Amino acid sequence: MIKKSVMINGIPHTIIAESNTSLAGVLRTQLRLTGTKIGCNEGHCGSCSVIIDNKLVRSCITKINKIPDWACITTIEGIGTPEKLDPIQKALVLHGAPQCGFCMPGFVVSSKALLQQNPSPSREDVRAWFQKNLNACRCTGYKPIVDAVMDAAAVMRGEKPAESLDYKLPADGRIWGGTYPRPSAIAKVTGTADYGADLGLKLPPNTLQLALVQSKFSHANILSIDTSEAERMPGVVKVVTHKDVKGKNRINGLVTFPTNKCDGWDRPILCDTKVFQYGDAVAIVCADTKEQALAAAEKVKVTYEELPAYMSAPAAMADDAIEIHPGTPNVYFEQGVVKGPDSKPLMDSADYVIENSYYTQRQPHLTIEPDMGFAYYDEEGRLTIHSKSIALYLHIMMIAEGLGIESSQLRMVQNTAGGTFGYKFCPTSEALLGVACMATGRPVYLEYDYQQFITYTGKRSPFFTKVKLGADKSGKMLAMETDWIVDHGAYSEFGDLLTHKGAQFIGAGYDIASIRGTGKAVCTNHAWGAPFRGYGSPESEFASESLVDELAEKIGMDPLELRYKNIYRPGATTPTGQTPETFSLEAMINILKPKYQAAKEKAALESTPEKKKGVGVSIGIYGAGGDGPDTAEAWVELLPNGSILISTTWSDHGQGADAGALGCAHEALRPLGIRPEQIRLELNDTAKAPDGGPAGGSRSQVIIGNAIKTACETMLQSIAKSTGNYLTYDEVISKGLPTKYSGRWTSASAIGDPDTGQGTPIENYMYGIFMAEVTVETKTGKVAVDKLTMVADVGRINNKLVVDGQIYGGLAQGVGFALKEDFEDLHKHTNMVSCGIPFAKDIPDKIEIIYYDNPRKSGPFGSSGVGELPNTAPHAAIINAIFWASGARVRELPAYPAKVLAALPKQ
Amino acid sequence: MIKKSVMINGIPHTIIAESNTSLAGVLRTQLRLTGTKIGCNEGHCGSCSVIIDNKLVRSCITKINKIPDWACITTIEGIGTPEKLDPIQKALVLHGAPQCGFCMPGFVVSSKALLQQNPSPSREDVRAWFQKNLNACRCTGYKPIVDAVMDAAAVMRGEKPAESLDYKLPADGRIWGGTYPRPSAIAKVTGTADYGADLGLKLPPNTLQLALVQSKFSHANILSIDTSEAERMPGVVKVVTHKDVKGKNRINGLVTFPTNKCDGWDRPILCDTKVFQYGDAVAIVCADTKEQALAAAEKVKVTYEELPAYMSAPAAMADDAIEIHPGTPNVYFEQGVVKGPDSKPLMDSADYVIENSYYTQRQPHLTIEPDMGFAYYDEEGRLTIHSKSIALYLHIMMIAEGLGIESSQLRMVQNTAGGTFGYKFCPTSEALLGVACMATGRPVYLEYDYQQFITYTGKRSPFFTKVKLGADKSGKMLAMETDWIVDHGAYSEFGDLLTHKGAQFIGAGYDIASIRGTGKAVCTNHAWGAPFRGYGSPESEFASESLVDELAEKIGMDPLELRYKNIYRPGATTPTGQTPETFSLEAMINILKPKYQAAKEKAALESTPEKKKGVGVSIGIYGAGGDGPDTAEAWVELLPNGSILISTTWSDHGQGADAGALGCAHEALRPLGIRPEQIRLELNDTAKAPDGGPAGGSRSQVIIGNAIKTACETMLQSIAKSTGNYLTYDEVISKGLPTKYSGRWTSASAIGDPDTGQGTPIENYMYGIFMAEVTVETKTGKVAVDKLTMVADVGRINNKLVVDGQIYGGLAQGVGFALKEDFEDLHKHTNMVSCGIPFAKDIPDKIEIIYYDNPRKSGPFGSSGVGELPNTAPHAAIINAIFWASGARVRELPAYPAKVLAALPKQ
Repeated sequence: MIKKSVMINGIPHTIIAESNTSLAGVLRTQLRLTGTKIGCNEGHCGSCSVIIDNKLVRSCITKINKIPDWACITTIEGIGTPEKLDPIQKALVLHGAPQCGFCMPGFVVSSKALLQQNPSPSREDVRAWFQKNLNACRCTGYKPIVDAVMDAAAVMRGEKPAESLDYKLPADGRIWGGTYPRPSAIAKVTGTADYGADLGLKLPPNTLQLALVQSKFSHANILSIDTSEAERMPGVVKVVTHKDVKGKNRINGLVTFPTNKCDGWDRPILCDTKVFQYGDAVAIVCADTKEQALAAAEKVKVTYEELPAYMSAPAAMADDAIEIHPGTPNVYFEQGVVKGPDSKPLMDSADYVIENSYYTQRQPHLTIEPDMGFAYYDEEGRLTIHSKSIALYLHIMMIAEGLGIESSQLRMVQNTAGGTFGYKFCPTSEALLGVACMATGRPVYLEYDYQQFITYTGKRSPFFTKVKLGADKSGKMLAMETDWIVDHGAYSEFGDLLTHKGAQFIGAGYDIASIRGTGKAVCTNHAWGAPFRGYGSPESEFASESLVDELAEKIGMDPLELRYKNIYRPGATTPTGQTPETFSLEAMINILKPKYQAAKEKAALESTPEKKKGVGVSIGIYGAGGDGPDTAEAWVELLPNGSILISTTWSDHGQGADAGALGCAHEALRPLGIRPEQIRLELNDTAKAPDGGPAGGSRSQVIIGNAIKTACETMLQSIAKSTGNYLTYDEVISKGLPTKYSGRWTSASAIGDPDTGQGTPIENYMYGIFMAEVTVETKTGKVAVDKLTMVADVGRINNKLVVDGQIYGGLAQGVGFALKEDFEDLHKHTNMVSCGIPFAKDIPDKIEIIYYDNPRKSGPFGSSGVGELPNTAPHAAIINAIFWASGARVRELPAYPAKVLAALPKQ
Repeated sequence: MIKKSVMINGIPHTIIAESNTSLAGVLRTQLRLTGTKIGCNEGHCGSCSVIIDNKLVRSCITKINKIPDWACITTIEGIGTPEKLDPIQKALVLHGAPQCGFCMPGFVVSSKALLQQNPSPSREDVRAWFQKNLNACRCTGYKPIVDAVMDAAAVMRGEKPAESLDYKLPADGRIWGGTYPRPSAIAKVTGTADYGADLGLKLPPNTLQLALVQSKFSHANILSIDTSEAERMPGVVKVVTHKDVKGKNRINGLVTFPTNKCDGWDRPILCDTKVFQYGDAVAIVCADTKEQALAAAEKVKVTYEELPAYMSAPAAMADDAIEIHPGTPNVYFEQGVVKGPDSKPLMDSADYVIENSYYTQRQPHLTIEPDMGFAYYDEEGRLTIHSKSIALYLHIMMIAEGLGIESSQLRMVQNTAGGTFGYKFCPTSEALLGVACMATGRPVYLEYDYQQFITYTGKRSPFFTKVKLGADKSGKMLAMETDWIVDHGAYSEFGDLLTHKGAQFIGAGYDIASIRGTGKAVCTNHAWGAPFRGYGSPESEFASESLVDELAEKIGMDPLELRYKNIYRPGATTPTGQTPETFSLEAMINILKPKYQAAKEKAALESTPEKKKGVGVSIGIYGAGGDGPDTAEAWVELLPNGSILISTTWSDHGQGADAGALGCAHEALRPLGIRPEQIRLELNDTAKAPDGGPAGGSRSQVIIGNAIKTACETMLQSIAKSTGNYLTYDEVISKGLPTKYSGRWTSASAIGDPDTGQGTPIENYMYGIFMAEVTVETKTGKVAVDKLTMVADVGRINNKLVVDGQIYGGLAQGVGFALKEDFEDLHKHTNMVSCGIPFAKDIPDKIEIIYYDNPRKSGPFGSSGVGELPNTAPHAAIINAIFWASGARVRELPAYPAKVLAALPKQ
């Protein structure tokens, strides 16, 4: 143990700690200065950045015994407070930089250190600083952060007035369509927002700390589990195994289609007879401290019989492959697509036929925050589980029976989440928490370290996609044939739905009269498939958007022209036979065209044999809604002080649920003349809010937004006076009118057919055109994305800050998906860096978004969604640009330099 | 468990807690907002004050489930920060209100709530508010706090400039003699100062929490201790008993005189064969959480054979009383006083002889902070004990052998202490912490709840004192005879020294040529005697100062005149035969006289039969130094950045060690032209600072101050240039001169003789004249102290804020001692209120201090001490005033209303 006198944020502190504790650990666990976040805990992400004696350090890799006595430490808590923000914090809020916000404290501290050293940095200086100091952000694409630092620096230099960093409410008081900062923004930039691990530290002292006993095999039978030695370890209260699970010990994977050969109950909460993938949980040690739990977990003896591990779909589909889940074939679901006349004769007679195979990889979500949660029995005896869940009511359905508890006795709460991008559709840690809490009767807390988080959460499932296109001389597409195989990993959860997405989005955007094909969902022993932003579209559209470009080359036609020729126009239908609700692509391409021409000319001019430059485009389409009739409920309540309470589950990945709900409610309540800060949000606690549905498929703005609008309108009708004014709370009470109103909204859609894929699964779509400008280094195969341009039709915009942020971040993930990110090698892909998270220098500083304002009938106040759109096809534009720059066609992602090098045409 | 959404200091928080947890517990233990302090934990002290929805509440008695959802809670952290103080905080600093500072956060929050409701309070409003909200302070006597609130309110109303609350360094840069705020002041008013319990919460997570198994008997044999069931309880790591103590399991009581019949080794660390008083510790449960430790402590089975309990000195002195410590007589030490010629003939021939018996009670220290501490092995393997110890090196001597550890392997550190007033001379919890840490090898934390704190810490020992005075016709005192019996409770620790004090201070202030008497130290089964401010003087001087007044009445002489006649003047000696180092009493009485006359006239004028008013005076004297040759060491070090490090042990009760050390060092270093903030203090860690001696007997300013001065002067001599300037750090290094210098200083004194009491135990004394103006309610016996006036000779003043604060606080404790405070009934006197802590309305708002500037030769820069002086005899002035107001003479303290009523002359 070591005793240190240090100054923290100008306050003298005596620190007493184990000598080898990290500074981040001391700050958070001991001093509970939880503004400093721990993401990776190995110096790769910068969330834990602090300043020691004017030097920026990552506190997670700074041991306390290395800090000089009387050192001056500055943490996020010392930079600004909600009431007195630093200019950097104000600027970040103004630019909408805080999305999930988990990285924000690190960026604030890092920027502070930069501006102390260099008060007049260039944009490149700022980006280089974040690169050097490994400040990683997974939401913003870095651009809004750089914008903010530049603005803050200008204010700090006195070149811009301080007020330029303040948000100004428009004169009409309207926030819809504007840049009102999300309500959580200030908490996020000041480190005062409590994320799950922060709340975990602030639980009552009798909370048990959990550690998992996990399989190191990818496929094995469990022969025995011996917990006796572990149970005798210090501080251990219980070692929980499958025997302690009261219910059926299975997670309900929620089968969508009756043709699914898996019943959806294939996934154990705690493995009993088998483990199906690396990291599968076999036991949970519950102890007084985390260290005790971890030490005891080492003492649980599990004996396994190793089985052949099928680490990809082709391996699991081999004739001699055994059934991973005995009784269920490894290929457990097939999705057909049958649109229009038979494709074969059309192909046979087509002027141009082109066919190729494409692979999209197992993309890791790489949120900066790993997974964690906690559970306890609430004051009404309900088992209450707090997590990063983005599907609260859905998760009750998925885990209650497995736990052995009535749904009504299960309460789910979403903590402020440091990003999910979809992985938290899977209630893995939630079920483990429920089991441990039920078995011990005590509050329990579980967190994954970053390696656990990567290896034991779902991933974007790889697609192996074959596509064939036939076109006439003019380039008009006549028919498409396609087969896609989805490596859905160890568990079927949502696997049929994802496979179904191939039918919707391979070839989306184009009027193709004849389509035939089959998709297969395959069980393997690699990481289970979890929803990931764009869900099915980046996989599907990569194939068709690559092949369209290849067709253009074959025809000798400009790829944008070829697209322009084939896009949806009145009379066209989608691959599932649906008439698009709007036809905006033509106008959007027209907007892009001059920019595309200019970009091509610039690339041609600047290209050199060593650094070849090129431009690629792609079309991206995704639905804003869940498949089929999608429904949401919201409540609105008039409070005694005249303010309004909005309750629903609008889960937040970081995409801006609070801003979304506020914007919808404020717009609907404008007749009341209410100020935005008079609207209070009670989101994401099933004991306090009705079911808004999960936060996925860009559904929330449309479906929940409509529910909020409906609730507000119902209330306004009820409390309207004949004079056109509205009753006050007191008048409402004295008239005996209700103060609380429910609003429900259901989309007019019907899920597609599993045999033909035909249907109108979603009512409201989002449309995008992507353009990428790249440089390919021909010696190394390294690709730099120089600029991204997107023309986006997201309907009428609720909050422009939020929508900009979604697009920047989605594009950045697209860059990562195109060039860097993968989770394939269980031993290598165990941290952010090896998994390929994009840092500042990976993402272009030049990102241009052009909105095509196109109000939707079915969206509240004309809106569509946004979240998935920027992820649909930016990678395809980049891959296409690589080709047009260098002639290298990469069909298997990610386009690592070695792959690009190999694909370069021989000189 | 309950989940709550609340705003804390403007920041949204989700709280998850056991429903019946107190808000204070949640704030501190879970959120680690440790600015909110827990003193009594039962709503009696207000340290935990917070504002909920504009209402002031005590958070220790506010259950979390009673707080409305979305409540707005303001804690000290939300009122001001070190960099942005609230005007209330600035004003408190300016007025020197933060002494120990433990109550400060509560006062800041309480004052904030008051000024929100009433921006223009009168002084009485402020006092009534603190009274109503039970804001207790044990250091300040409330006056500086009220001064501060009035000033802050004026600034907040815009009536005074904000800068009026800022300290201004004098133009000459000198802080000696001024009002430089103590270095710890800002941390104390902002709640950022970490006290022991705060650090306890911030220890590493593997820290074991301790609970004591304590005796409910006051005297018993231990027949057996069965820990088996407790050791099986959840979370229990070990139950430590005497068998686990490596050393001799005794605390060294540090016998002063060889004539002591007790060897000083009478006190067990953990009781083995017997328990000697209520609360004695028999075992320590070490567990992962406090709740677990407390639950297991209930399961330790101790069987006792009860023995007769001697709850007062007379009972323990009875012939049939058994020896409490077998082998040692209950009367274990006698102190004689033999001065001058035999007293008997003088008494026989005196014109006036008067004799009476007096009793001073078992005064509880009633610091707002209870006792706590922690221990661990440091990085060099030393057992390190952090506590409120005010005698770090002394405590190593007292406990090392009992623990069974080399002194060099024991490191003691003082935490910021929320008051001790002397009780922390006794290393009780320190020894228990050492035992538990050694037995488990893990960090351990122990805190007492307030009931434990009161019943299981030492108290001011009761004195049963008989005094007889003989005087001639003119009032000239001729002889004094006195016997005093000290009920020193269960343990002998410092008991002989305290008894010796009777010889020094009964009759102090008067030139009495002949004195005879005997004091006896008696062992009882009541609370052990611990040092308490004034140590021996309030007990001794109460007797003689009462009797002098009774003599005046008998003679028919004014009591101030009688004193004036008999005070020390050149040629006089003290009761121990020492020539006073200064003769300031005459001048001091001359200063008081006109005020005294005016007060008497006012009292006579305003007195009514129902509310009788009167004026009383007393003389108080105490030494500034430890008995005998008292020594201290300090180090001064020149640091690379040109600042200076001062190291020593100058422990802080709250009296202002930091200000004291800083003032001495800055004055000594003035030739360097250094600013006060360039002086860094490393106080009170034996691994980092040399032995300055304990903080008791008002010795620090004189003894340690001289050591600091010596060290600084030595350095200045070494680094002086011939030009009159001084070498810089770099020049010192390049010349190969040392950067670090030691200073030592030892007083020229010799302890008194145990047989005669004669000697020159202390070199430097403090002198005071007290005047009390009181109102006695004749129907109820209730006494109100209307005003206190003190003329003080404390030598040259180092820091006037600190000295003022010491005097205000000491006088307030004198009021409590006179009227309210006691620890007698083990079942009743278990909390602050029943023990009689004075609240705002008990202490007069009118307190006048008049300093008699009288530089001392032996004190650094002319200083004497201060801490004990205001406690020496203010109670005597009050008791005398009661008599002059009403004729009621109270000889047994405290003067509860019933006692006063009973003493009132029959009508």
